[in-house]
Amino acid sequence: MGTRYNVIAGQSVERLAALSDGLFAVAMTLLVLDLKVPASHAITTDQALLAALRELAPRLVVYLMSFLTLGIFWVGQQTQLSHLVRSDRHLTWIHLIFLFAISLMPFSTSLMAEFITLRTALLLYWLNIFAFGVLLFVSWRYARHAQLVQPDATAVIDRSVERRIYIAQALYAFGAALCLFSTYWSIGFIILVQLIYVVGPRTGILSRM
Amino acid sequence: MGTRYNVIAGQSVERLAALSDGLFAVAMTLLVLDLKVPASHAITTDQALLAALRELAPRLVVYLMSFLTLGIFWVGQQTQLSHLVRSDRHLTWIHLIFLFAISLMPFSTSLMAEFITLRTALLLYWLNIFAFGVLLFVSWRYARHAQLVQPDATAVIDRSVERRIYIAQALYAFGAALCLFSTYWSIGFIILVQLIYVVGPRTGILSRM
Amino acid sequence: MGTRYNVIAGQSVERLAALSDGLFAVAMTLLVLDLKVPASHAITTDQALLAALRELAPRLVVYLMSFLTLGIFWVGQQTQLSHLVRSDRHLTWIHLIFLFAISLMPFSTSLMAEFITLRTALLLYWLNIFAFGVLLFVSWRYARHAQLVQPDATAVIDRSVERRIYIAQALYAFGAALCLFSTYWSIGFIILVQLIYVVGPRTGILSRM
Amino acid sequence: MGTRYNVIAGQSVERLAALSDGLFAVAMTLLVLDLKVPASHAITTDQALLAALRELAPRLVVYLMSFLTLGIFWVGQQTQLSHLVRSDRHLTWIHLIFLFAISLMPFSTSLMAEFITLRTALLLYWLNIFAFGVLLFVSWRYARHAQLVQPDATAVIDRSVERRIYIAQALYAFGAALCLFSTYWSIGFIILVQLIYVVGPRTGILSRM
Repeated sequence: MGTRYNVIAGQSVERLAALSDGLFAVAMTLLVLDLKVPASHAITTDQALLAALRELAPRLVVYLMSFLTLGIFWVGQQTQLSHLVRSDRHLTWIHLIFLFAISLMPFSTSLMAEFITLRTALLLYWLNIFAFGVLLFVSWRYARHAQLVQPDATAVIDRSVERRIYIAQALYAFGAALCLFSTYWSIGFIILVQLIYVVGPRTGILSRM
Repeated sequence: MGTRYNVIAGQSVERLAALSDGLFAVAMTLLVLDLKVPASHAITTDQALLAALRELAPRLVVYLMSFLTLGIFWVGQQTQLSHLVRSDRHLTWIHLIFLFAISLMPFSTSLMAEFITLRTALLLYWLNIFAFGVLLFVSWRYARHAQLVQPDATAVIDRSVERRIYIAQALYAFGAALCLFSTYWSIGFIILVQLIYVVGPRTGILSRM
Repeated sequence: MGTRYNVIAGQSVERLAALSDGLFAVAMTLLVLDLKVPASHAITTDQALLAALRELAPRLVVYLMSFLTLGIFWVGQQTQLSHLVRSDRHLTWIHLIFLFAISLMPFSTSLMAEFITLRTALLLYWLNIFAFGVLLFVSWRYARHAQLVQPDATAVIDRSVERRIYIAQALYAFGAALCLFSTYWSIGFIILVQLIYVVGPRTGILSRM
Repeated sequence: MGTRYNVIAGQSVERLAALSDGLFAVAMTLLVLDLKVPASHAITTDQALLAALRELAPRLVVYLMSFLTLGIFWVGQQTQLSHLVRSDRHLTWIHLIFLFAISLMPFSTSLMAEFITLRTALLLYWLNIFAFGVLLFVSWRYARHAQLVQPDATAVIDRSVERRIYIAQALYAFGAALCLFSTYWSIGFIILVQLIYVVGPRTGILSRM
């Protein structure tokens, strides 16, 4: 009987990281590609152009939010991968499905930018972010279970990775729930959460994020 | 007489892997880009948006299937490359043609999503997958013949790589043949095969895949 | 109390460089993608095609300018990263926001190509370049402050990096200000500055750039 | 007086290679993106779909030709970079301009696919390929002049790299000149040249290519 393919497939963390970096780069750039330049025939003055651009402003905010989201999960994935000794076939597939969810982000973002007042669009956007969290959580649990994590990545790091996912997802869920009042409240709250992650405060309760 | 260019060209496995990762990343992201956001002027309620999205659902299934396909062949190519000591000009070109076939995938996918009931679209899609298998098979045979494979990649690995291609292609061909009954049967069967590859069972007949 | 995530996140300069290279590559290629091939039904002779292409010429100049801009800042970012020992979470986020600004470049470029005579378009384009400079400056200052810079990157290199940003941004600002006379003067001047950076003269005042 | 920026900028061959791989990957994938799926409302049978696809066939040939061209010059650039000890600012810029020419390829290709019988389109396509050759030639000469080439890359390799560029460009120029008779002759001849490069014969006159 031959070797099972499982044993020899998908062992390279480097190539998984390279594919991820490429896919994140494309997804991040495509986000902004949806910002359409206004049609030139109707616009001949600076005033008219400024007015047309002002209409684009909410879209720009939504795209910035999505860029930050992708950035946050890129950092999260990179942190996990940097603590692995090697990958295996199953972990590779968990990350490929994570990348599929990432590749859906330009769609969810366009949808929300187009239907900024509808809860359906907001909840699908949140579902997309929720999928990122679930898949990174599953990835970390599996990596520990299959002993792919570096021995020196201690229980302290371990708790830190998982707690971060819990807290972030709780905040995103709360933000999504705010759409009961208004989708603008949801968007505002989620952007606030993102900005806290970006700034990464060093003291107080926020530093636990 | 000078050195033939053949001797010095295309020796880097690393750059071949980098180009491949980049091209797979773009192809994977472009797949989903074809999911068009419904036009906003006709839709003003959550119900209308949900109905519009429900119509997109079959497309999403087709895109997921193509993403899984690209993932499967990315893992397959990566596994081969990880067993090579170096590349040469001929192997580089086999992989460039493999990448050309990969770059056709967004087109085949769009075609099948657009004409989901027509056998022509399904058979072209299958032909695309068939080309992946043939090119990976040729690549492996050539790499062994030209002694580019690592000495410690034994006959066991060798048989494992080739058997996997045989079994997978037999299943894809059977799936394609099911279009005699209905293209939906084909799609359903192919997705089932993909999912088995993704899960990668460890025991029983399926573990030989 | 657990480890703060800050300590373990975003430490890899390599992955930051890989994400940046991917994003720059996509942004550079998308720039040119906006060059639309003229519609074929109206054009049947070489003369008609040449005339149609002549109309595209100003766009091509704008795209070349943007490509050079992206090239200049890619070199600038690469030079900084090559002097770092490691990254940290804050530096990673400074560069992610830098990449967000980079991803806006295809939009700013299209806008300027479409409204080449309007100052608003030119000033937004300049604002985009200004953001690149500010973010690279902040990145370098932070890297020094957080002691992420290689010890052998002496004060000489340090001054060289900062001076280059000052001089370049002063020239860009002057170029933008020329739009008081005409946006064409601005574009001409900025292209001149870019070309000096590309050629990189070795003697005289220009060598300080 | 401070260090000139020239001395410390653009020294990494690795990042230049990474940017190049990314840009080639995007350009290669975008080529095929221009293959538009026929509109579904007019097509309801397999016969109609086959007829619509048959009309796409010449485009597919043009795209294959462009993919092969990009592949040939990717191999050429990679071979050069693999013989460098390091890069410098000037070499980096030569390659950035080479990449600009590469990024124009999807445009030239679309133009030729759209106006397959017009000489203007064919000559612009040839000009694009000619630019690749000139820039790779300049790059190699500069690298030797600035002593960036590995010491063990002997005169033999040197002649081999340059001769290949001469022969290839002579053949492309001859192919382009064939458009005096018909652009189809040009395309046919250029594809033939590409295929010889892809196959890379080992004996006879062709092995000097």
